[in-house]
Amino acid sequence: MFGEYLSHVREKQPHIHCITNYVTANDCANLLLASGSSPIMADCPEESAEITALCDGLLLNTGTLNPDKLSAMRKSGRTANELHHPVVLDPVGAGASRFRTESVLSLVKELRIDVIRGNLSEIKALFCHAESSGGVDAVSSDRITEENLPEMLTLIRQIAAVQNTVIAVTGQIDIIADKNQAYCIRNGCSMMKSVTGSGCQLSALTAAFITANPERILESAAAAVCMMGVCGETALEHLESYEGNASFRNRIIDAVSHLDAEMLDKKAKYQIF
Amino acid sequence: MFGEYLSHVREKQPHIHCITNYVTANDCANLLLASGSSPIMADCPEESAEITALCDGLLLNTGTLNPDKLSAMRKSGRTANELHHPVVLDPVGAGASRFRTESVLSLVKELRIDVIRGNLSEIKALFCHAESSGGVDAVSSDRITEENLPEMLTLIRQIAAVQNTVIAVTGQIDIIADKNQAYCIRNGCSMMKSVTGSGCQLSALTAAFITANPERILESAAAAVCMMGVCGETALEHLESYEGNASFRNRIIDAVSHLDAEMLDKKAKYQIF
Amino acid sequence: MFGEYLSHVREKQPHIHCITNYVTANDCANLLLASGSSPIMADCPEESAEITALCDGLLLNTGTLNPDKLSAMRKSGRTANELHHPVVLDPVGAGASRFRTESVLSLVKELRIDVIRGNLSEIKALFCHAESSGGVDAVSSDRITEENLPEMLTLIRQIAAVQNTVIAVTGQIDIIADKNQAYCIRNGCSMMKSVTGSGCQLSALTAAFITANPERILESAAAAVCMMGVCGETALEHLESYEGNASFRNRIIDAVSHLDAEMLDKKAKYQIF
Repeated sequence: MFGEYLSHVREKQPHIHCITNYVTANDCANLLLASGSSPIMADCPEESAEITALCDGLLLNTGTLNPDKLSAMRKSGRTANELHHPVVLDPVGAGASRFRTESVLSLVKELRIDVIRGNLSEIKALFCHAESSGGVDAVSSDRITEENLPEMLTLIRQIAAVQNTVIAVTGQIDIIADKNQAYCIRNGCSMMKSVTGSGCQLSALTAAFITANPERILESAAAAVCMMGVCGETALEHLESYEGNASFRNRIIDAVSHLDAEMLDKKAKYQIF
Repeated sequence: MFGEYLSHVREKQPHIHCITNYVTANDCANLLLASGSSPIMADCPEESAEITALCDGLLLNTGTLNPDKLSAMRKSGRTANELHHPVVLDPVGAGASRFRTESVLSLVKELRIDVIRGNLSEIKALFCHAESSGGVDAVSSDRITEENLPEMLTLIRQIAAVQNTVIAVTGQIDIIADKNQAYCIRNGCSMMKSVTGSGCQLSALTAAFITANPERILESAAAAVCMMGVCGETALEHLESYEGNASFRNRIIDAVSHLDAEMLDKKAKYQIF
Repeated sequence: MFGEYLSHVREKQPHIHCITNYVTANDCANLLLASGSSPIMADCPEESAEITALCDGLLLNTGTLNPDKLSAMRKSGRTANELHHPVVLDPVGAGASRFRTESVLSLVKELRIDVIRGNLSEIKALFCHAESSGGVDAVSSDRITEENLPEMLTLIRQIAAVQNTVIAVTGQIDIIADKNQAYCIRNGCSMMKSVTGSGCQLSALTAAFITANPERILESAAAAVCMMGVCGETALEHLESYEGNASFRNRIIDAVSHLDAEMLDKKAKYQIF
């Protein structure tokens, strides 16, 4: 099933407008190109709405946020909503500062977001009145484990219901849920944490998937999360013993460029709740 | 002949001031270092003119443009013109928004630009009153093909004559022209489209080439375009079957660091019209 | 001895707030992750102080500086000083423009900086009333050589004494000094100059080292410089003949992820004066 959503990305080659951070923008762009979609990065309020209108889907990533970028996100978000373009929000660093948290919450309130993808710390900081955050990485207590999985499934489905969106929480185990259903995914490997922006890249891929599959937001978001994990596994297989996170980063993107629908379906490890 | 221009880059090691986008700045910097030239990235109006004066050539790239960056480009452009430093303009995204198109046109009007390097969509959006653009990538109808080559040669030479500059349009077939002469280059490979910023990198390389060969702007710009294509071919030869666009990106820059004058002359595929 | 400081980085996994340039931010982030520390990039004045407070150490890098970023550096620097978080300053491009030089000098004056790491051109432009700078790279006359080493040791120790900080000058030979003692390090290889931001990455690594070893600022800064050199040597060993600076960049970060304390101690080449 996931393979079909990937095929749609390869066929439709959606244009994704990315308003994102400068730390990982290059990797996000190359990953989108590897997926078959086409990235356009533009983040100034003077043009962002026009760029959004030219594209098929929108990614809002709050890394290295500033007031100008936030203003561009508002304008692009409104345009995307008017044109019914799918929108992914990656609330990077939510909880790490008042400015970051309040900015993200204002976007969530003002815009119709199709998928919010973050780590558990970020999602809890936004929607569970949690006070602590370890910055852009999930704090160790904020992990989805086999033990707390049932509890987490309930929590994330509740948040999805209240926010009326798809919530994708990624970590060792991933949960992608709307109010009715949840996917639990067990692909990937722990080394992915050592690549800066692996989450940013996944959010970009998610934007490509839901844009190419607008009738299947939950399922195609789950497919994107699964694909990123599968490509992490493939990347690890090709890693020489002396290679580390920098080479691994390249090999993940390389794997995205090669993965086909059949292989994605074969390697996918998921449950539906 | 092209090899000689490369030798001048390696010998003179020109300092290139780059005002460019944050998506591909790192690759542009590493590519310039690979070529033997030396990049300096600085894009704030408070210092840009001083930085330009310290360097030998100037690159203006309008990706992720904003009003501050545009102001820096104006100041640096004027300084470069006063000091007779070669200037390359890469009109990234021209046609994608009014702000982007008008900004680029104002730079073209106010400054003496030695080479404008873009894809056909961008060049047509700027100079042919074309309305449509597919963003930062050339739209599929805007391609130079064997069929429309004579027509395109005429068009680009006309634009070069009216603008009194060198126009370098790159794609599957590249045309580099001034009002008198045109180079048509057939190096490179289709995979180069899958690397974000391969055009940005080429523009940076072009700045290095024309700065090291200021008496031969047309010919050395053509040499830069040819070199990028040759290095794409070399990169492809070294690519493992499981490697994709991320590794390919590295191998192109690697190839730039190794290519010598003799090999460039040997592999160059071009015609002069 | 240096190995012990590395072990502390791996054990304590310090969070480093980086206010840095967009050209090399991605490499700095991946290098910090490779070292076992955790980067947080945030550079807007609206949140920078809060982000600093959440972290354990602070890196200020003046590449692609602008007034907003400078304001964020001031706020974060003050917070770091109040909380006794170690602070590293990388004065990228000092001497290249009045804005850059004066901005860096204002930071040095207003803040307590634990380590200033730059090339000899930058350090001289800041503290020796030198007028010339070749931009962000050291000009050729500004080199530490075997011949001028005694003179340079005296100079750098003097600067360290006057500024009451640790000065780390890196190049073919590295000198890391406070007013009492100096380390002279001879690791590394000349190819490191061909990687954009190898200095930026070293400054980030230095921030991780001194944050994990706050009682041993001089020694752990020297250990970071030594480690970067050793990893450059390791990277070179794994480089294929057709690979160049782009692959080398990845292999340096890869080597950082693999180096252990024992190997660092074994490969370290240094003298204490």
